[in-house]
Amino acid sequence: MGGDNAPAMVIDGLELAAERHPGARILLVGDEAAIAPLLARRRRASSICTVRHAPDVISGDMKPTAALRLRNASMRLAIDAVAGGEASGVVSAGNTGALLALAKIVIKSLPGIDRPAMAAIAPSRRGDVVMLDLGANVQCDVRNLVQFAVMGDVFARTVLGLTAPSIGLLNVGSEELKGDDTVREAAEVLRASHIAPQFHGFVEGHDIAAGTTDVVVTDGFTGNVALKTGEGALKLIGDLLRQVFNRNWASRLAYLLAKPGLDRLREWLDPRRYNGAVMVGLNGVVVKSHGGTDAHGFAHAIDVAMDMVVHRFNDRIREDLGRIGTDVTPADAPPAQEKNDDGPRLATA
Amino acid sequence: MGGDNAPAMVIDGLELAAERHPGARILLVGDEAAIAPLLARRRRASSICTVRHAPDVISGDMKPTAALRLRNASMRLAIDAVAGGEASGVVSAGNTGALLALAKIVIKSLPGIDRPAMAAIAPSRRGDVVMLDLGANVQCDVRNLVQFAVMGDVFARTVLGLTAPSIGLLNVGSEELKGDDTVREAAEVLRASHIAPQFHGFVEGHDIAAGTTDVVVTDGFTGNVALKTGEGALKLIGDLLRQVFNRNWASRLAYLLAKPGLDRLREWLDPRRYNGAVMVGLNGVVVKSHGGTDAHGFAHAIDVAMDMVVHRFNDRIREDLGRIGTDVTPADAPPAQEKNDDGPRLATA
Repeated sequence: MGGDNAPAMVIDGLELAAERHPGARILLVGDEAAIAPLLARRRRASSICTVRHAPDVISGDMKPTAALRLRNASMRLAIDAVAGGEASGVVSAGNTGALLALAKIVIKSLPGIDRPAMAAIAPSRRGDVVMLDLGANVQCDVRNLVQFAVMGDVFARTVLGLTAPSIGLLNVGSEELKGDDTVREAAEVLRASHIAPQFHGFVEGHDIAAGTTDVVVTDGFTGNVALKTGEGALKLIGDLLRQVFNRNWASRLAYLLAKPGLDRLREWLDPRRYNGAVMVGLNGVVVKSHGGTDAHGFAHAIDVAMDMVVHRFNDRIREDLGRIGTDVTPADAPPAQEKNDDGPRLATA
Repeated sequence: MGGDNAPAMVIDGLELAAERHPGARILLVGDEAAIAPLLARRRRASSICTVRHAPDVISGDMKPTAALRLRNASMRLAIDAVAGGEASGVVSAGNTGALLALAKIVIKSLPGIDRPAMAAIAPSRRGDVVMLDLGANVQCDVRNLVQFAVMGDVFARTVLGLTAPSIGLLNVGSEELKGDDTVREAAEVLRASHIAPQFHGFVEGHDIAAGTTDVVVTDGFTGNVALKTGEGALKLIGDLLRQVFNRNWASRLAYLLAKPGLDRLREWLDPRRYNGAVMVGLNGVVVKSHGGTDAHGFAHAIDVAMDMVVHRFNDRIREDLGRIGTDVTPADAPPAQEKNDDGPRLATA
């Protein structure tokens, strides 16, 4: 029920997802009266979805504290399904703050993770880059940043399929003496960890688009601002280019002549292709779709969740946290949530 | 002597600057043997410049502590000229950390300013935007952010010529509850200050390129990352567009047809047009040119310094700090450094 065009957009997205993931099982949580007729018209989506009625909806502007009290909201029931082991993950285009708060309280953090983070993929000159944290934690300490690096590494291996992703710590300069104590100490810990061979050291803002490293680790305040600044710059250029090609007959002809290349560039930068911020460090997969996305973007968010479930994202984080010398070893960890006998299960709300 | 192509680039820049500011007096500090023959060939630059020999140079990779010991370096002598009242400001394309450290220690902060900041101008959909701090202070408290807002306001009025610039505080969301305590408290102080009518509240990363406000205030860590992330995104698009237009005969023809519009776009985004980061909050004007810029970029950095000197930037900051209720009133302030009887004076190093 979350996002600007729900539930129709979600169901159209599920129709696309059903084609790519016919083995998935989706628990579709929301207002049954609104969902059922839409789903009836979507043959593929129907074949993978089970509807669960939820009488309430968490609106986009609702405060997390108010959202926590709505125990029969669609987002809450979907998250309950993950917490109860019924689903391996949840995908939602709804209220970000509410989703994060509910996920932290109901699904809970992985043992050894102090604070879950928000991660996403951004385009760069040298391929996709994983960035985290993107806003879950406005203030971070050394342990947080180190744990983000471990999770970013697993994310890049799981979702991007890299074998040894390079990891950079975002800073105001690449020299060792730059930045505040937190980033300098985090760099020291990473240099002494199992991740050391992959740790590139400090990277700067321009290194994100340059693709200097596969993973960029930062606190939630800086990461959120950086991601939105980059998106804003790309949007501005896109709009200005549209004006350039609409000036007169010559520029419109120019557009037609360059269209194949421009279309590929636009597709490559298409925000829908990068839709699906992941809340990593929780006892289940939680993917936040952009609220303003369309069916293609929502289907991509489901792709991300499926990748994480199928490649046992959380099991790998548990293993790696043991290696970095936190207080939790894999033996202490609870059984993985992602195990299913009849294909991966996701809940959408 | 600072920057990749000094001193030739600096002298070529001064030739351009002399055309725009024939009344300026430039104290050119550096290796006289290298400077004199270059200057001799530049008629206009010669007419506004006096050369002062400096035997030493602060290299680009020198630590600020080492730079402080080089008392006869060109950058040091130029800064000494400002501290001694001989020059109203200094423009340098050299080592940023050294320039900042020397300026703070030798020129000193304005009374009432706890920490000087680095400000610069960035392009946006709705005109130029002033951003600060861009890296002088990686950690900032409430007072710092409030003082940055006051200085950003004066900067936008002085250099951009706006009468009542709108001011935004960079945050991870525009709602009042978002962000950490520091930004929330800074917003409260600004809402209660003389700046309140111009204070827009919180802005997010994408608001920079959108031009939501004329001034964007943030801590030096976030500002540095945001600026470089935006620059990196623009550079990536520029490079990719070049590839698009170089694919085949059709795309090359497209480029020729769209060239007037594309050229205007490129000119508008030209980093040289935005060259010249200003260290605000010091007892004199200090402008840092990018080290990799050319003569046009360096001349622009001189334009910025001239604007600040001619429009009495620091006098205005002193007046406004009095209004915001810090411990300093204009009456306590020392006499303005910018007063000159025979035209503004700058030192370049």
